[in-house]
Amino acid sequence: MSRVVKLAVIPGDGIGPEVVTEAEKVLDAVTIHSDVTFEKKHFSLGAGRYLETGDTLTDDDLAAICANDAIILGAVGGTPGDPRLKDANIERGLLLKLRFTLDHYVNLRPSKLYAGAPGPLSAPGDVDFVVVREGTEGPYVGNGGAIRVGTPHEVANETSVNTAYGIERVVRYAFELAGRRRQKLTLVHKTNVLVHSGGMWQRIVNEVAQEHPDVVVDYLHVDAATIFLVTNPSRFDVIVTDNLFGDILTDLAGAVTGGIGLAASGNINPDGTFPSMFEPVHGSAPDIAGQQKADPTAAILSIALLLDHLGLPEESIRVTRAVEADIAARDGSRTTSQTGDAIIARLQA
Amino acid sequence: MSRVVKLAVIPGDGIGPEVVTEAEKVLDAVTIHSDVTFEKKHFSLGAGRYLETGDTLTDDDLAAICANDAIILGAVGGTPGDPRLKDANIERGLLLKLRFTLDHYVNLRPSKLYAGAPGPLSAPGDVDFVVVREGTEGPYVGNGGAIRVGTPHEVANETSVNTAYGIERVVRYAFELAGRRRQKLTLVHKTNVLVHSGGMWQRIVNEVAQEHPDVVVDYLHVDAATIFLVTNPSRFDVIVTDNLFGDILTDLAGAVTGGIGLAASGNINPDGTFPSMFEPVHGSAPDIAGQQKADPTAAILSIALLLDHLGLPEESIRVTRAVEADIAARDGSRTTSQTGDAIIARLQA
Ligand SMILES: CC(C)[C@H](C(=O)O)[C@@H](O)C(=O)O
Ligand SMILES: CC(C)[C@H](C(=O)O)[C@@H](O)C(=O)O
Repeated sequence: MSRVVKLAVIPGDGIGPEVVTEAEKVLDAVTIHSDVTFEKKHFSLGAGRYLETGDTLTDDDLAAICANDAIILGAVGGTPGDPRLKDANIERGLLLKLRFTLDHYVNLRPSKLYAGAPGPLSAPGDVDFVVVREGTEGPYVGNGGAIRVGTPHEVANETSVNTAYGIERVVRYAFELAGRRRQKLTLVHKTNVLVHSGGMWQRIVNEVAQEHPDVVVDYLHVDAATIFLVTNPSRFDVIVTDNLFGDILTDLAGAVTGGIGLAASGNINPDGTFPSMFEPVHGSAPDIAGQQKADPTAAILSIALLLDHLGLPEESIRVTRAVEADIAARDGSRTTSQTGDAIIARLQA
Repeated sequence: MSRVVKLAVIPGDGIGPEVVTEAEKVLDAVTIHSDVTFEKKHFSLGAGRYLETGDTLTDDDLAAICANDAIILGAVGGTPGDPRLKDANIERGLLLKLRFTLDHYVNLRPSKLYAGAPGPLSAPGDVDFVVVREGTEGPYVGNGGAIRVGTPHEVANETSVNTAYGIERVVRYAFELAGRRRQKLTLVHKTNVLVHSGGMWQRIVNEVAQEHPDVVVDYLHVDAATIFLVTNPSRFDVIVTDNLFGDILTDLAGAVTGGIGLAASGNINPDGTFPSMFEPVHGSAPDIAGQQKADPTAAILSIALLLDHLGLPEESIRVTRAVEADIAARDGSRTTSQTGDAIIARLQA
């Protein structure tokens, strides 16, 4: 009995198409003998499409994307400072619009220091943690505005909106994940300054903790958390945090564990109401686009997250193992597709 | 002709009193033969005072503090989780109230990797930069609130307030500082998400840049900035950024350059309308308080910033040089006062 999974593929801009090509190759290779068939539909979205048509993400695009079971995305964003993109905000209009509309309330970002991966720390220890970043609230909601723009009397406000509903669901997810891992959960916020939202995060974590007596809970202010990420990253198991703090911490975590070229992520709607979306944490890097210089590993590890999400844990682990084996043996420089091929060779070995 | 400087001293909680004692000793030692006399007034403020009297910072306290030319502060904050402090927010009610009321719009935080200082990076390079953190706006304004607190329908908002007035003055300060240093200024924000406040920061930086053709300007999103702080911290000279991003980046910067035990800061009102305040970046660390375990170096380097602010650059440099010489020769553990004494010995050598 064969299962069909409909997959929306959004290669995007810059290095996006190159890394997604490798991710697709790996997906094909790992499922070739399985009873799952992926029916892929490619969407041409991003700065390129905007420059051609003026559209960022239409209702028709959204409907067509929603008809799929899951999404893989490369990266979106044009050349910084491109005057033709001055009035476009591809990040808000495309990437964040997808995360918000598809209710991706869990932004899942694992960080692992793979054997052989070069990192900036002299004594990193054994690093293996997951940041559960809230994906649909906080300072990302876009509830801001400005008056007297461009004058000496301009005032610009940005409102972070936080709800018990939104926090509780992501906190529950994080506790369950911690329960399946090393039973440690760290809330990161800035409760001493952002007393209202921070107070609510802390209260809800305390409440849900009652149902998870096995999970050890602690709390760090976001500033202190950045210190520990460089001085003692192995102290972390699961971090649960708000949308903006999660954005910041996961780039730092990526850097600490061998670079953003290895950092994968899942934008997950655990309820299954909408398709979840898997993407490398890195951006579109237009400066090296089209040159086969990008490392496709983060995109390929995002395939592992996708497979796990689709209930294909064995395939997921095979991809991760192949990547691990490849990282351990890396030396010299390779093209994007050479790295993809090397990982596929490990898969088939 | 002798000059009298009135100095408010706020030792605060935890390790605050211990490190401030050493800072005062260094201040006395470096000015003993100069024609400046410091008239010090001690203020007993912090969690300890709150627990005794219920007061955090009264109008009388404020008036008495304002009667001084400058302030040194150790650290404030009681034991985390102390139920008696549940309804107090010493950080907001004391530290932030001082910064806001005394219009400390420049929160100056230098980061330097001193020879011999141990750090977490394997190849840090030559690190010497200053974060100019805005101190009176942004998400720190306390314009938040919540409804239906404690229920499943709670909503908590936090509003970041940003003004052209507030941004322009700190941006000007940062450009002038960059002009006196290595002529490089990096704006850090999150303009792709916080489009209104970020847009204003970027516009004002672009405008003020016109008056400083000597200064090379670039921009980084806050998430990317954390990556560079661990992979290439020597790329920075002056960073100018918002209150919250500055909070996060400077703890990370402290960690990268040998630890928060070395990180000094000035909360500066450049107009001189109110006294400026100098403090170590670290907190009160109640767990090691009273044990002579704290490193007073950050408090002592804050004295160097104070002296510079007071127009005593030679004394400031002497303190910095003494600290540098001490750091280069450190080994084994010392008590708080032994470190202070060692630095004073270098001063007098
Ligand atoms: C591109 C940007 C809007 C995005 C974010 O801030 O979430 C990115 O930094 C990320 O982490 O996925
Ligand atoms: C104690 C806290 C309110 C303060 C801040 O967030 O500014 C501290 O972290 C700092 O950096 O001085």
